[in-house]
Amino acid sequence: MTAETAVQDLYEAEFAHCYGCGRLNEGGLHVRTVWRDGQGEARYTPRPGQVAVPGYVYGGLIASLVDCHGIGTAAAAAMEEAGLEPGADASPRFVTASLRVDFLAPTPMGRELRLRARPVEVGARKVVVEVEMTAGGPVTARGRVVAVRMPESFGSPG
Amino acid sequence: MTAETAVQDLYEAEFAHCYGCGRLNEGGLHVRTVWRDGQGEARYTPRPGQVAVPGYVYGGLIASLVDCHGIGTAAAAAMEEAGLEPGADASPRFVTASLRVDFLAPTPMGRELRLRARPVEVGARKVVVEVEMTAGGPVTARGRVVAVRMPESFGSPG
Repeated sequence: MTAETAVQDLYEAEFAHCYGCGRLNEGGLHVRTVWRDGQGEARYTPRPGQVAVPGYVYGGLIASLVDCHGIGTAAAAAMEEAGLEPGADASPRFVTASLRVDFLAPTPMGRELRLRARPVEVGARKVVVEVEMTAGGPVTARGRVVAVRMPESFGSPG
Repeated sequence: MTAETAVQDLYEAEFAHCYGCGRLNEGGLHVRTVWRDGQGEARYTPRPGQVAVPGYVYGGLIASLVDCHGIGTAAAAAMEEAGLEPGADASPRFVTASLRVDFLAPTPMGRELRLRARPVEVGARKVVVEVEMTAGGPVTARGRVVAVRMPESFGSPG
């Protein structure tokens, strides 16, 4: 394991197409969750068009970052709970049951966003994660993700 | 006014660059909220890469649609409350204070998504909107957007 291997680097290929965090999604956001000291860390630099109004980051992008980073952190927390090593062993795939984001202040463009995620409830099938995001200053967005193990039904599109 | 003029068509140009709903954002999602009988309606067909896993729509996209459609609906509700005509008069710009999305079931790709938004609290500066999304069947996602009038500070990037 290297310190910089992300949870998403170790999803099985069939689960690596997510627009937000799939390494195989060419035009996607490529959110990468690194597990360190019981927390998930991620960084993202918004692209020029990802704005709400000129100069400020689009809230839907922030929601997407919180979502995928929350899911990656949930996977890592569940792995650690099961005695596995996040960033070394294959990552289990969680999905989002519920997502909440509170936008505390406008998030300026032109800076690297940092997201820190903390598991607050860790079960084998359900993990709850709280996320804080900064852009070189105080927290501008706070999120909460309820993650559940991916149900079988995801494998068979209706 | 035509029935199909969207709230977002009538944002002032400086507020029409949003990745989610700005008509001037070339690569954006172009969410369009049409106000009809006290509710906001929107439709969106996901692009091929906007998946969570192959065959199913990305949750962060759903959150983005709920967000921008919620904001568009908030603007329309506030206009009607003030005696203005959504889809005819210039639209005021709201921003998101809080966004919540509950993912009730996986949302299949290859279908047009329909979002219906209902204002549940309408004030001059704060509007709360509830959103339901379908993909040709039962509701797959339910959202709640707390929208507030855009603060002055948005006009001056820090």
